[in-house]
Amino acid sequence: MNSDLCRKLGIEFPLFAFSHCRDVVAAVSRAGGMGVFGAVLYTPEQLRTELEWIDANCGGKPYGVDLIVPTSIQRQGGSGPSDDQLLAGLPAEHLAFAEQVLERAGVGADDLEERRCALLHISRNLDSAGAEAMLDVAFSFPIRLIANALGTPPQIMLDRARAAGVPVAALVGSKQHAQRQVAAGVDILVAAGGEAGGHCGEVSTMVLVPEVVSVAGDTPVLAAGGIVTGRQMAAAMAMGAAGAWCGSVWLTTAEGEPSQVVKDKMLAASSSDTVRSRSRTGKTSRQLKSAWTDAWEADGPAPLPMPLQSLVAEPALARIEALAQRGHAGAADLATYWVGQGVGLMTQTTSAAEVVQDFKRDYLAATERLMATLED
Amino acid sequence: MNSDLCRKLGIEFPLFAFSHCRDVVAAVSRAGGMGVFGAVLYTPEQLRTELEWIDANCGGKPYGVDLIVPTSIQRQGGSGPSDDQLLAGLPAEHLAFAEQVLERAGVGADDLEERRCALLHISRNLDSAGAEAMLDVAFSFPIRLIANALGTPPQIMLDRARAAGVPVAALVGSKQHAQRQVAAGVDILVAAGGEAGGHCGEVSTMVLVPEVVSVAGDTPVLAAGGIVTGRQMAAAMAMGAAGAWCGSVWLTTAEGEPSQVVKDKMLAASSSDTVRSRSRTGKTSRQLKSAWTDAWEADGPAPLPMPLQSLVAEPALARIEALAQRGHAGAADLATYWVGQGVGLMTQTTSAAEVVQDFKRDYLAATERLMATLED
Repeated sequence: MNSDLCRKLGIEFPLFAFSHCRDVVAAVSRAGGMGVFGAVLYTPEQLRTELEWIDANCGGKPYGVDLIVPTSIQRQGGSGPSDDQLLAGLPAEHLAFAEQVLERAGVGADDLEERRCALLHISRNLDSAGAEAMLDVAFSFPIRLIANALGTPPQIMLDRARAAGVPVAALVGSKQHAQRQVAAGVDILVAAGGEAGGHCGEVSTMVLVPEVVSVAGDTPVLAAGGIVTGRQMAAAMAMGAAGAWCGSVWLTTAEGEPSQVVKDKMLAASSSDTVRSRSRTGKTSRQLKSAWTDAWEADGPAPLPMPLQSLVAEPALARIEALAQRGHAGAADLATYWVGQGVGLMTQTTSAAEVVQDFKRDYLAATERLMATLED
Repeated sequence: MNSDLCRKLGIEFPLFAFSHCRDVVAAVSRAGGMGVFGAVLYTPEQLRTELEWIDANCGGKPYGVDLIVPTSIQRQGGSGPSDDQLLAGLPAEHLAFAEQVLERAGVGADDLEERRCALLHISRNLDSAGAEAMLDVAFSFPIRLIANALGTPPQIMLDRARAAGVPVAALVGSKQHAQRQVAAGVDILVAAGGEAGGHCGEVSTMVLVPEVVSVAGDTPVLAAGGIVTGRQMAAAMAMGAAGAWCGSVWLTTAEGEPSQVVKDKMLAASSSDTVRSRSRTGKTSRQLKSAWTDAWEADGPAPLPMPLQSLVAEPALARIEALAQRGHAGAADLATYWVGQGVGLMTQTTSAAEVVQDFKRDYLAATERLMATLED
């Protein structure tokens, strides 16, 4: 494609695959897009293992890493609360509510403590020492993009990226966020509309993309939120976006990380079957509606701040996922995952590489459809 | 433009202006789009007066009418509740809450009863006899489009439109709505995303448009929701829409019907300054956030079904608008109007005709931007 951003990043087609699944990341990069590995749920050691695999399997094509590095990393300094402090800070009400939801569905809750301890590194990734350890690993690989998923990247992240010659991307949910990020020196803005899976704001992609483009100046803008087809990518680029940043569409590919139970729920879901909720991370994120999200929306306690809510929700959801995979009906009802409204357009499973090819064909057809309107 | 829909309707550019303001309707039709007069708040006599003016001022160009004709019109038969029955059915709690909001802002509430009686025709437009009277007036003019704003058009509306050779459009907020409307024989679908002003669902324009197109077959789809620029119209058409249906963008034109107070609030508003609320009509509709919507969202009583909630809200909002126009600060804080998230992109006042020309220029530039990505 004739695109400054493609030339800058050394890619063929400006389709960015945000994924927690290394297979998707490598497959999309090999197919001409750019895979971006979402690392927030991993330990530094796990991240190293995954990036070694990606580096060995991406055919020498560019790939990136996505982290949540707190804006306050330098002010805060040192480590955050200890594991014991974190566990002691979890209110009994929240832990009891999560257990009750599992018990009512016959899922049981006997290994939640063990699962919670195994996930304490999530909170460490959000403090200064932990985030620096993740940056150390990321920059020990020849990554071509580093993204910050929440808030303005701290100076240390920008400095390290500059030193490594790696562009920094950051997600924004409003024009005001975009202005702050441009002022901070971010190289690529990802404008994430309210229909996006995962953390999202309220302004829709159709409105947010031209708004962010209007204040971005020379900074390229990727469109995110609801985009699962090439025609939607073309739509975003007609509005001035330089490419598309997609997370949901990879979930139902053959490689995608969710269990088959969750994939089947997504393939059957309509675009109305997602919910924006603070019950998973403490911040508003969009996910598939399920008995779990219904329970929290109906009468769950007020969500805790990050990372505490994750330490309530993730162990329970990990248990649900494990049991759902083994055919437990109650667990299948509870099972959920982050996904955007585009889930209504995700109706069959192909490979991640085939998704990229479908995007290219559909993008071309959409562009030709628009060109035809100008013919005499 | 090379467009089957343009040829069918006799227009130059498939930009549809939904407006309660006759000046906007005539100006957009004259400029090459199609003005569609939103008649639900008018009496049949008022509708006749407005359409006579439009017909005399549209330069012989096509225009249309938008009504809310209940799906159940034939089942229901005859007239709805009498005026006395309607007024008796308004709960004291709701009337008192509206009055309190006005009193707290120093706006006063002494003429609300009078204003309420003057608005009783809104409910009559929603019963069978009233809706037929509106259809009688509409079809006594050479309209080129008739639209139903909520739900599937009743058979009588479709039959009368067929007899008059007038295409019927209907608004849809989900793929399922679209399937029902196509089955009912609607000629044009208006896919209205959740970012739209007025009545709207939850699915965003970016997702809803390709979803509706996928089930519309040969039925043309207009995109609505958040669209206030030509680049967004091009985006929608890249996704398969046949045109754009816009309501918000006309509100801040020189001709637009809101008071200058409301126009100024809209010009200053960001895309985050709207709210979806049931407090105006009883169904979910998007409007500018104000002290009025804040009060209802914070601790208003549960909204009443249509048309009762309108009979609580509209008299209060009419009084607010009147006092705001006279410079009353409390009334200005309360003043609101239906508008979509696109309000964040509406930053200056021009004429409605200039908006159409801006759309054309921006549409062309967006199409050329997309074409350029395919160049070698």
